[in-house]
Amino acid sequence: MDAIALHRDEDGPRRIDLPRPEPSPGEALVRTLRVGIDGTDHEVISGGHGTFPEGSDHLVLGHEAVGVVVDANDTALDEGDVVAPTVRRPAPDGTGNEYFARGEPDMAPAGTYHERGIVGANGYMAEYFVSPARDLVTLPERLAERGFLVEPLSISEKAFEHAYASRSAFDWTPESAMVLGNGALGLLTLGMLVETRGIAPDRAYCLGRRDRPDPTIDVIEELGATYVDSRTTPVVDVPDRYEAMDLVYEATGFARHAFDTVEALAPNGVGALVGVPSPWKFEVDGGALHRDLVLSNKALVGTVNSNVSHFEAATTTLDALPEWLLDAVVTDVVPVEEFPQAFREDDATIKTAIEFSEL
Amino acid sequence: MDAIALHRDEDGPRRIDLPRPEPSPGEALVRTLRVGIDGTDHEVISGGHGTFPEGSDHLVLGHEAVGVVVDANDTALDEGDVVAPTVRRPAPDGTGNEYFARGEPDMAPAGTYHERGIVGANGYMAEYFVSPARDLVTLPERLAERGFLVEPLSISEKAFEHAYASRSAFDWTPESAMVLGNGALGLLTLGMLVETRGIAPDRAYCLGRRDRPDPTIDVIEELGATYVDSRTTPVVDVPDRYEAMDLVYEATGFARHAFDTVEALAPNGVGALVGVPSPWKFEVDGGALHRDLVLSNKALVGTVNSNVSHFEAATTTLDALPEWLLDAVVTDVVPVEEFPQAFREDDATIKTAIEFSEL
Repeated sequence: MDAIALHRDEDGPRRIDLPRPEPSPGEALVRTLRVGIDGTDHEVISGGHGTFPEGSDHLVLGHEAVGVVVDANDTALDEGDVVAPTVRRPAPDGTGNEYFARGEPDMAPAGTYHERGIVGANGYMAEYFVSPARDLVTLPERLAERGFLVEPLSISEKAFEHAYASRSAFDWTPESAMVLGNGALGLLTLGMLVETRGIAPDRAYCLGRRDRPDPTIDVIEELGATYVDSRTTPVVDVPDRYEAMDLVYEATGFARHAFDTVEALAPNGVGALVGVPSPWKFEVDGGALHRDLVLSNKALVGTVNSNVSHFEAATTTLDALPEWLLDAVVTDVVPVEEFPQAFREDDATIKTAIEFSEL
Repeated sequence: MDAIALHRDEDGPRRIDLPRPEPSPGEALVRTLRVGIDGTDHEVISGGHGTFPEGSDHLVLGHEAVGVVVDANDTALDEGDVVAPTVRRPAPDGTGNEYFARGEPDMAPAGTYHERGIVGANGYMAEYFVSPARDLVTLPERLAERGFLVEPLSISEKAFEHAYASRSAFDWTPESAMVLGNGALGLLTLGMLVETRGIAPDRAYCLGRRDRPDPTIDVIEELGATYVDSRTTPVVDVPDRYEAMDLVYEATGFARHAFDTVEALAPNGVGALVGVPSPWKFEVDGGALHRDLVLSNKALVGTVNSNVSHFEAATTTLDALPEWLLDAVVTDVVPVEEFPQAFREDDATIKTAIEFSEL
């Protein structure tokens, strides 16, 4: 079968031929429909993140997948079920097993898990894949074409769950919110805030550093939200220029943003951090930041990955998001033969996917 | 009646004579038993924090009080009730009223409240005080002598409530915990962790920078906990030297500690920040900190002040803490005539109180 894989010492993915996998007991065989591409895939390709499966010269890419069950293999699934697979799997040494056993692989410490398509395990960019049935979340058939968005949406479902939990000890309903980052995840998250989290469009903001005309700014404004250009309005100036934020969602991985988020927050606000920066030393007014965190009851909550419950919530969210938004964010879906096009990065590209088959 | 007050342009408190206050409707008149002194009082005296009541040349000090109701004034209280008053009151302009109306004055933004004995309103260091009955928390009579500890304990009850809430979206039971700061609040909080929060003594740590022999180190070790000397083991070295912490409680207000806390935390851990630093610029590896917050699902939660629910929880906690601990932490209780002794700061002093009357 066709697969898209990165090989050791190569700087780009290749289309290769692999045998169709056989499901083990408890696993189902899934025919892949589409696999989305995100920043993590680009980091894996550039060598900045991820590891090859032990003993293998290649890593099959892809962790944002949707497919259809073709061999339920005596699991609770049925042939024909449309499914999205979660990403983490137990490491062979079993160190993370307790987290998997209670359905919280997303809380497993680094080193105790593999991540399909990223860390130590082949991903979903292949005509078929197998997965334990318990790691496959069923979607309504009508979501089949866009089901590869369930994984990125699940990242924000988890981030919101943890951020809201951190504010659950008191009466808190966020009315203003800002997303840092106008990539696909940022735009989808802005859409979630407006469409499913009760943030009025005129209290929703998304920060980027692009010039108009730009398709991401178009999406922001079509949602009724405000585009904040970080080149003219740094994060710390947002409260004066616009308003202080009850909720900030940091998706850029630009480390200064995590610290500046404290200043952008309204009293009792929370910053949800999902972007992943590299080590980088800089000066902060640590005293002022620390003081503000305390005296204004603010919180910073980092979260990574997601579990089945977040995939389920994301499925509901995907169904609730307007079609125009999904159409605008997914700028290209290419057949496997044209896969290099899906890895292009330019200002016209927001999110792409590779199509392996149709429902 | 006797009162202890700070006057404008004076650098220490004075004993003055004031008329006994009259309760307004909804208020009770309380005969003061004891008033504790903490770091905030010292900051108010040094001019680093707090404001005088508008139009007044003095501020009656004291926000950690216990007293007995002598005129219930048709409120729900009874004469003879032992009570501890909360600290925040609505500012006259009413801006914080919604927070008070729902019992969450601790979440009111700066500028929308007064704090008795600290910000814009006279405190409790007087033979009598009045307070709205709803801001007086009733204690069992057996806690009368130590009831001035309810306020500081309530600060930690709130900090724990918010910190635990931030971890409530997943299965989390802290097993290791470290308190930064070996002042009275730090020691009481260490006691709470061991006696009421299920932290085994050999997984409990308290950080300070004192040489032995020292009464605070004695308390730490009598609790079965480990004293961490920050001069030889900086916060960031704690995981290697001892273990990574599920929970860190930062009570020093030393801003570097807030950032170093992220490194001291175990995966999925939370840092509760209650110490209040001053502005201070320094360099951090912001990228590494941000990355660690995200990839290890860590959180930092700042909290300040406390409300009636926290006072109620603190009352239960005070009743549960061992007498030897309270005796060891409260190193001096002096009659009002000897009040200057209660403001002494030396290595033999942990916590002091002024006694205005006996039950």
